[in-house]
Amino acid sequence: MKKDLRLLKSFLLMSNNRVLAPGAKIGIIGGGQLGRMLAMAAAQLGFHVHILSPEQSPPAAEVSQLHVCADYDDPEALRAFAQGVDVITYEFENIPAEPMAALNDAPGLFPPVAALSATQDRLEEKNFLQSLSLPVANFSAIDSLSDLESGVEALGFPAMLKTRRFGYDGKGQAKLSKSDDLSEVYKGFIETPAVLEAFVAFECELSVVMVRAHDGSVAAYDVARNSHENQILHTSTVPSGVSDEVLNEAFRIARVFADAIDYVGVFAVEFFYCGEGAENPLIVNEIAPRVHNTGHWTMDGCSVGQFENHIRAIAGWPLGDTSRHSDAVMTNLIGEDVNAWVKYAGESNTAVHLYGKAEVRTGRKMGHVTKLKPL
Amino acid sequence: MKKDLRLLKSFLLMSNNRVLAPGAKIGIIGGGQLGRMLAMAAAQLGFHVHILSPEQSPPAAEVSQLHVCADYDDPEALRAFAQGVDVITYEFENIPAEPMAALNDAPGLFPPVAALSATQDRLEEKNFLQSLSLPVANFSAIDSLSDLESGVEALGFPAMLKTRRFGYDGKGQAKLSKSDDLSEVYKGFIETPAVLEAFVAFECELSVVMVRAHDGSVAAYDVARNSHENQILHTSTVPSGVSDEVLNEAFRIARVFADAIDYVGVFAVEFFYCGEGAENPLIVNEIAPRVHNTGHWTMDGCSVGQFENHIRAIAGWPLGDTSRHSDAVMTNLIGEDVNAWVKYAGESNTAVHLYGKAEVRTGRKMGHVTKLKPL
Repeated sequence: MKKDLRLLKSFLLMSNNRVLAPGAKIGIIGGGQLGRMLAMAAAQLGFHVHILSPEQSPPAAEVSQLHVCADYDDPEALRAFAQGVDVITYEFENIPAEPMAALNDAPGLFPPVAALSATQDRLEEKNFLQSLSLPVANFSAIDSLSDLESGVEALGFPAMLKTRRFGYDGKGQAKLSKSDDLSEVYKGFIETPAVLEAFVAFECELSVVMVRAHDGSVAAYDVARNSHENQILHTSTVPSGVSDEVLNEAFRIARVFADAIDYVGVFAVEFFYCGEGAENPLIVNEIAPRVHNTGHWTMDGCSVGQFENHIRAIAGWPLGDTSRHSDAVMTNLIGEDVNAWVKYAGESNTAVHLYGKAEVRTGRKMGHVTKLKPL
Repeated sequence: MKKDLRLLKSFLLMSNNRVLAPGAKIGIIGGGQLGRMLAMAAAQLGFHVHILSPEQSPPAAEVSQLHVCADYDDPEALRAFAQGVDVITYEFENIPAEPMAALNDAPGLFPPVAALSATQDRLEEKNFLQSLSLPVANFSAIDSLSDLESGVEALGFPAMLKTRRFGYDGKGQAKLSKSDDLSEVYKGFIETPAVLEAFVAFECELSVVMVRAHDGSVAAYDVARNSHENQILHTSTVPSGVSDEVLNEAFRIARVFADAIDYVGVFAVEFFYCGEGAENPLIVNEIAPRVHNTGHWTMDGCSVGQFENHIRAIAGWPLGDTSRHSDAVMTNLIGEDVNAWVKYAGESNTAVHLYGKAEVRTGRKMGHVTKLKPL
């Protein structure tokens, strides 16, 4: 007796239009470690994965059925890629929204393009969050030196000058102090649309990773407390140690954002945490419309991790259980940190994840380890 | 600053001759679901995986860097395959030991070929276990009808007639009762070397999955209680509910076997469990020199699952923690069982694993689900 899963799939697609059965093809735009871990989560659920990325041998390619080597802004390649899969997702937000928008019809692109528009430009992101009455730092658009001069007058020192687009891991940022020569600092931002943000005196960074399904249901992982080194995420620790009120406020903010754009998939909200006594204990720093480094601990600390939940959401499956069975400290292995793999491999209750990158480079994310403490 | 991991690898290979650094290539002979889950575990640790199997698109191929399509008994293909990797392992024991033996020099084949010789022939396996004073059912070699007649005279009824080689999931077996016409039954075994086994009146089947490292250290997962349907594994349940004495005896038996052949990697020992009061509570049924279906629960119920531990062992890494953070019931999805994937996906504390097989066939292992109950 033989039966092709495609029959079942067709039935489900008809009855719901969004549930993908095992055997369906998932296209991932981007081939880095996030794409790699998404691809493995998808394979575990019986999906086939196609990767589109401009690199010859990106980390995600070797754990996927197919790798299409093409630029992210090549509309022809994107269209052809889309025709070969049943749903498309992406592993990073710095892809041009315009060619992606062309994919917004069949077979379906999740998270929606609105999530890209809402998050890949810091100014638009802040305007959008403010329109939802969500707490953000005071800010001012900067398109000229005189904008900057009036900006610091309004916001005071210290302040953060940031490019509106393509910033990550502290790149494209400058902290301004009273003693700085503004015209000197601004030389690094000429012809680059920027935004000036009032400096937030925060105790630490917190983040929440949430997943939202087609039907609007959401599930969130516990909030992580994050530390950085050289402006790159170093550790995420769960539990974060903040009060239930703060946790609930973090979940509320995340949900307001997601509901506003009918988000589908996993996303992360990074917060400045200003302490229990602050007027706004939580200020939104930024939102990442994708699986997130501060959610890597969920792979080992929860029943269903963020990568599987992203795949479940975009495939129309029921969301997986986000409850935590262990306390966790995730540590990134940046650059030569990865050479300590043998030490981590020998530690108990420690999950080792290496990304298969051949070249160790300073600042490059090579892997991560998660130390667990069962509850 | 750039640094190639290969430098580190060479150093470690020199200093130990057996520790493979991330970036090394692991060859897996066999491309089914076990190879697939091994490949994903290897990728998590930063290894590249090559698969050799005769199928066009086996489940393991799409999560591996390279798939070599070749027969298992093609010595040229095996040699070429070996030259492209740093270590070789296999996902099933029914491969001809002779061509494999040719690989026993560089780059290293683990588990050792001795494990194949010791387990792929039921008669040799029983002789070997008996030579180690390990408990097996009484048995008799059967190469003719007269062998069978004298065999049942010696062992009594009921008895099990089994082919010496290539049996699995109850295939190549017949249960003999007093009323059977021996010459009729034997027609199915003519020209097939066989073995007659005294029937063991057992309460249930138990199994232990153990991993052994190059240095002789071992780690074992908790013993599972297994149930079968149509002679195919249906569920594995942990804890098994038997006494500590029985658990320790199971671990002792497994270790004696592994030490005797300087085993490296994961293996499983299946036992008939005859009850606490029996003279021998545990009788070895058979040994599988590979990751094992009754160990699938370890992926979700333990810090480090059997697939990762197999990769760690053959790569010379420290063995991973086999301790259990949850009680677990693993259920195989056989044939059309897989159509219930959406039900399982909606259950809490349930891990879903589907193998990416396009065709549903009766008796085919399509996936498994593990229901967890945190301790």
